[in-house]
Amino acid sequence: MTRETIHRIRAAIADEGVDAVLTASPENFAYVTGFLVPSQPLMRWRHAMALVPAVGEPGAVVVDMEESTVRRQLPAWNVRPWGEFTDDPMEVLARFLEAGGLAGGRIGLEMDYMPAGDFARLCERLPRARFEAAEQLLARLRQVKTPHELELLRRLSRISDRAILDAYRAVEAGMTEMDLAAALTRSVYAQGAENFKLLIVATGERSQLPNVGPTDRVLQAGDVCRVEIFAVIGGYHAGVCRTAVVQQAPPHAERIWANLTACKHLLLEHIGPGASTRRIYETYLAKLSELDLPPIAFVGHGIGVHLHEQPYLGPYSDATLKPGMVLGIEPLTYRTGHGYGMQNKDMVAVTEDGCELLSDVTDSDRLIVVN
Amino acid sequence: MTRETIHRIRAAIADEGVDAVLTASPENFAYVTGFLVPSQPLMRWRHAMALVPAVGEPGAVVVDMEESTVRRQLPAWNVRPWGEFTDDPMEVLARFLEAGGLAGGRIGLEMDYMPAGDFARLCERLPRARFEAAEQLLARLRQVKTPHELELLRRLSRISDRAILDAYRAVEAGMTEMDLAAALTRSVYAQGAENFKLLIVATGERSQLPNVGPTDRVLQAGDVCRVEIFAVIGGYHAGVCRTAVVQQAPPHAERIWANLTACKHLLLEHIGPGASTRRIYETYLAKLSELDLPPIAFVGHGIGVHLHEQPYLGPYSDATLKPGMVLGIEPLTYRTGHGYGMQNKDMVAVTEDGCELLSDVTDSDRLIVVN
Repeated sequence: MTRETIHRIRAAIADEGVDAVLTASPENFAYVTGFLVPSQPLMRWRHAMALVPAVGEPGAVVVDMEESTVRRQLPAWNVRPWGEFTDDPMEVLARFLEAGGLAGGRIGLEMDYMPAGDFARLCERLPRARFEAAEQLLARLRQVKTPHELELLRRLSRISDRAILDAYRAVEAGMTEMDLAAALTRSVYAQGAENFKLLIVATGERSQLPNVGPTDRVLQAGDVCRVEIFAVIGGYHAGVCRTAVVQQAPPHAERIWANLTACKHLLLEHIGPGASTRRIYETYLAKLSELDLPPIAFVGHGIGVHLHEQPYLGPYSDATLKPGMVLGIEPLTYRTGHGYGMQNKDMVAVTEDGCELLSDVTDSDRLIVVN
Repeated sequence: MTRETIHRIRAAIADEGVDAVLTASPENFAYVTGFLVPSQPLMRWRHAMALVPAVGEPGAVVVDMEESTVRRQLPAWNVRPWGEFTDDPMEVLARFLEAGGLAGGRIGLEMDYMPAGDFARLCERLPRARFEAAEQLLARLRQVKTPHELELLRRLSRISDRAILDAYRAVEAGMTEMDLAAALTRSVYAQGAENFKLLIVATGERSQLPNVGPTDRVLQAGDVCRVEIFAVIGGYHAGVCRTAVVQQAPPHAERIWANLTACKHLLLEHIGPGASTRRIYETYLAKLSELDLPPIAFVGHGIGVHLHEQPYLGPYSDATLKPGMVLGIEPLTYRTGHGYGMQNKDMVAVTEDGCELLSDVTDSDRLIVVN
């Protein structure tokens, strides 16, 4: 499943003229190998690093307590363990690079993750090696998904989408945000997700707050509810947000939702191969202004091993969309001026001739109604 | 609530002779300020750094989208935002340090977190500043908890403990590991946790696997079940693991559990002020050997803003326990030789004259029985 990824990294290595790319972060380890080392994101001193050389087999240097897991996942790889309590991982890494003929090589490395202290020891140990920042190369490669990544993100999108719908159906007025959260997490696991991130449950006046978790607030008729979740498998994320009303919509909510729905369709219409991300954002801003909705900083972003990745649909950069890119798009207005906020977040893949809505379980053109 | 922490950091700064301590990681930001910047652990490029100078008020440099949250939490602090898409955070940090009279200062910094690329730019921008590794100083300070931290860890310990008991009571033979996970997460949130980490649900033959999440495996009479969870509030963790049997214990399980229970009481007997962590580990190993249980790499560890912290109850280092330290202790045997594994993880605080079991909800001296 990672052969295609390794192939793409090798092509980029050849273009850049480096001798190898070395990952440092859990996210790029997952990108290169197809799986997340379980404890690396939880205890970041448990270094697990993947090495893709220009020639020869890929390899990995991993903390001893994760060695068996890594060997099971990567039977053909050259796996070198280091002892959590007995080794300096940089010494083991240095020997590994020497053995691979890279002691004097040009090595692309994630300089935005590699800790400064470790890097200083590595440089001292391998004075002839030339380390170069490789995070932009990896970020660029990650933008266009392989068929395997696309299938995984499609599955994750549907898990998140379905879980929110399940949660809204499982509760009624008089129950609490905690009940929503419990139904949500139950559905996420029941559908096979390994994990989830950024569980947002914001109801009533709390629906105006950007990133808040569930409380014991009781659902009441006329509430607006915002629920968001990112399902996770193998280090990959898909985030969906859905807005519901309890029993009946409060004043203006139907109209504002119709406007946000129009914004969503505008995005789906413009997302496609060859489109400019900045132009899409500008078109979106114009639509917001026409609908009397407040502007937002960006309306979408790449997604995969990170919750947010390049490209952003925003004003600060410009990129051309390509088939295989996957975007989270999020028409929203936290400040409606009526004491509630609304948001609709979907997952979209750029196809050969337009785009595919990956989070296609719920008909979110209509406000969901909680009993 | 963080006044005591700031006071302790200032005392350590004076001892070390540095002019300030600057955090880089989400964990030490939480330690210094008492709260976690929501998106920092999720998107680590969103730098949020706390500065504690030897003299003058503490300050923080934070990504713009978290500025309002940080100002609400730290009204008296000097908070400087940087723009996620418009600024180099190191340039903003450099100006902040200059304004604080630290352009030529000795600054303690987390060199095991600060990315090498950012660090290089910071050093170039402030050539007269002397940056020194401060991660050990912070790790040492974090070992002894303030009364506030202790109260929070006591609360979190009980949340995790109660949640596992609630989950075991909510299921019966014929239900699945997913049902256990759903009941568990529901209880964790219902009790007021903000979040959780490392949800482990391992039943039947899967109880032998160290770190695995829930699957659709169906619970059967005679199963051994291992469930572990870390409840999280304000960036602090408390982990508990409990073992249960479904309806009846399989062969040898009662005896093995009695042995693990004896090991737990041995630990509780030896943990107290003045005790040597290595000596406790050696005593524990001897007991394991006497009971014919296999040795383990360490039997406990500090805990707080990290899942594992110093001191470890293991063979590779030695430390003297002090009142206020909090430890996770985990008598376990994954390989009983009978097709199941067992574990009992508790949270313990070192007191003036011994220790306090913080996870005191469940009577884990007896195997929990699932119907």
